[in-house]
Amino acid sequence: METRNERRLEILLIEDNQNDVELFLNVVDWIKMGDKVRVFLDGREALDFLHGKGDYKKPPETLPSVVFIDLKMPLISGHEVLKAIRKDKRTKTLPIVVFTSSDQEKDIGDTYKSGVNSYVVKPVQFEKYAETIRDLINYWRNVNVPP
Amino acid sequence: METRNERRLEILLIEDNQNDVELFLNVVDWIKMGDKVRVFLDGREALDFLHGKGDYKKPPETLPSVVFIDLKMPLISGHEVLKAIRKDKRTKTLPIVVFTSSDQEKDIGDTYKSGVNSYVVKPVQFEKYAETIRDLINYWRNVNVPP
Repeated sequence: METRNERRLEILLIEDNQNDVELFLNVVDWIKMGDKVRVFLDGREALDFLHGKGDYKKPPETLPSVVFIDLKMPLISGHEVLKAIRKDKRTKTLPIVVFTSSDQEKDIGDTYKSGVNSYVVKPVQFEKYAETIRDLINYWRNVNVPP
Repeated sequence: METRNERRLEILLIEDNQNDVELFLNVVDWIKMGDKVRVFLDGREALDFLHGKGDYKKPPETLPSVVFIDLKMPLISGHEVLKAIRKDKRTKTLPIVVFTSSDQEKDIGDTYKSGVNSYVVKPVQFEKYAETIRDLINYWRNVNVPP
């Protein structure tokens, strides 16, 4: 059994906004738990990576422990990425957290219906935003056990 | 939009072990956020409550924000409760956290396949156990947005 604090998190972050990516990575550095983050600026490439398509000849040997996805992205929305991950047998049970500025009931309801594990709204205020990233990462590292 | 710390959590706790229930309620008192907990000592009654069957003439007007379920219980297992909640249209998207002493791969895999939102193992050591309950409650209150 993995006990609290012993493992590092392997995070897949799908986020098209460069500032948001930078803040996320800064928080990861700040909490100093050695968590690894693989960033994709668009959902299409993240899916290619997970499913071993396109430039990726084969799927990764180990899946990430958790995926954080933005909802509003060009090319392919976070919701479409979520559905594609749930549809594929290999990635079906991956823990997925939607991390978005949208607090629209429709976005919340639709993503829960598609099997998101958690829905998190990005706070507007900077300090709260950073704290939320910290709490998110700590929960999925220390409290949750991935499949 | 609900911001951090502003709302109280309505928790449904399904747990057959009286000591574990007591510890959970003590932590809720300790963190003083006014979270409400409805406890069911068996899964059958919890399902009757959620679905308005048996002694419950109708389903509750508002659903809980999160359900914590133990896995190993007499009469009906946590896994069966999870499947029954996911099967019913009204409760299909309820956030469900399995909170169990089992760290068996099969239990973890099976519950993720049935659509659990998060799988949490009860730590053996008392202090860590209490901290985990605190972190669990704080995450589902402050970070996650329920459907």
